[in-house]
Amino acid sequence: MKFYFAGAIRGGREKLNIFIKINELLEKYGEVLDKHVANPNVFELEKNVSHEERYKRDIDWIKECDILVAEASTPSLGVGYEIAYAEKLGKRIICVYDEQVTLSSMICGNNYNEIIKYKDAEDLLTKLETALKGDKNE
Amino acid sequence: MKFYFAGAIRGGREKLNIFIKINELLEKYGEVLDKHVANPNVFELEKNVSHEERYKRDIDWIKECDILVAEASTPSLGVGYEIAYAEKLGKRIICVYDEQVTLSSMICGNNYNEIIKYKDAEDLLTKLETALKGDKNE
Repeated sequence: MKFYFAGAIRGGREKLNIFIKINELLEKYGEVLDKHVANPNVFELEKNVSHEERYKRDIDWIKECDILVAEASTPSLGVGYEIAYAEKLGKRIICVYDEQVTLSSMICGNNYNEIIKYKDAEDLLTKLETALKGDKNE
Repeated sequence: MKFYFAGAIRGGREKLNIFIKINELLEKYGEVLDKHVANPNVFELEKNVSHEERYKRDIDWIKECDILVAEASTPSLGVGYEIAYAEKLGKRIICVYDEQVTLSSMICGNNYNEIIKYKDAEDLLTKLETALKGDKNE
């Protein structure tokens, strides 16, 4: 199973600890293609990669993945773009977000997405693991 | 000419004055379908519209528009989603952003988008008007 993890970079890193926990869980079930997103040193890691190279690389990873998992608590142009791109390709999409946030209608008003609202990291990991073990059509 | 204006709502309203000026300019050249985005009272206006209704309505407007103009200085899931959706439909996309912001690579690394970087409102309006008068293929 190959995952694309969509999480804010320039939009804000407030949820970095959640990003890391999500990625650890996903690695139990398969491979996260874009490991840099949950890396605390993402800006250093990416400093020599051009915008065009990043765009092409990330699109290639979305094409390659089986499931896109998005942490959608933090507003982000990139995450919104990636969710729409994955939908276009018919990928399974799981969007998770902190219950203290009001999610964009363009994400939670779209029945294509599987939405998980969480109250803390433990709650998130339990619900996300249940979704990963299940089938979206069940 | 019909425009879809993509601007952050839940992502933050810091650029509301710029949103208003963009919309005034667009109205000189045609119709802005989603006038509520640049309205200071957007939350009040939208309070009785469900997430699903908003999603369907906004997607219908993107389908109807000739050009999507995005103010991309403020991180926003909705704006990112809308840009990708408009690209899928082959719409002309103009993304404008404040030069003090570092734009997401998923927006500025994608050669499909026309990107306008501005230093202030006057600079933005001059450049956007030039783009609207011109042709994207020139």
